[in-house]
Amino acid sequence: MKHQWTERPRPARLERRVELPDYAATRRFLDAAAVSCERAGIYPDISFGRTYVNMTLVADAEILDAAMHGLAAELDALIPQTTTV
Amino acid sequence: MKHQWTERPRPARLERRVELPDYAATRRFLDAAAVSCERAGIYPDISFGRTYVNMTLVADAEILDAAMHGLAAELDALIPQTTTV
Repeated sequence: MKHQWTERPRPARLERRVELPDYAATRRFLDAAAVSCERAGIYPDISFGRTYVNMTLVADAEILDAAMHGLAAELDALIPQTTTV
Repeated sequence: MKHQWTERPRPARLERRVELPDYAATRRFLDAAAVSCERAGIYPDISFGRTYVNMTLVADAEILDAAMHGLAAELDALIPQTTTV
């Protein structure tokens, strides 16, 4: 599935940084992301502050499988449009 | 105010790591923490995964003021008791 995350090795992982306009938008994104992660049963490492979110999806056993790529694409779709232009 | 965070220099900051029993508890803690942070107008850097949360309160101008220590104590009170024993 197509997504906008960066793939990195050792350990195999996908990373994406999102900038958001304010804390309310950050909270809304994190809440929506939590629903997707729980449904996928995949829990990225997430760091965030008032107006940014960094997400890392680390592969089990060095394999970034379809479920991880799918979750990455799903999380992309949750990012407010104004922040991605 | 008394709290259980570790104070570190360069930059002056307070840090605390919390382990939680499951993702639902992690989400509940983060949601409650967001309310406190928004009320205080102070936004820690937070990183989390399925069952952990790391929080860092970085001082503006190298001064950890009463508001930051107060927020640290308030966030302590939100940690489920079973995880702190």
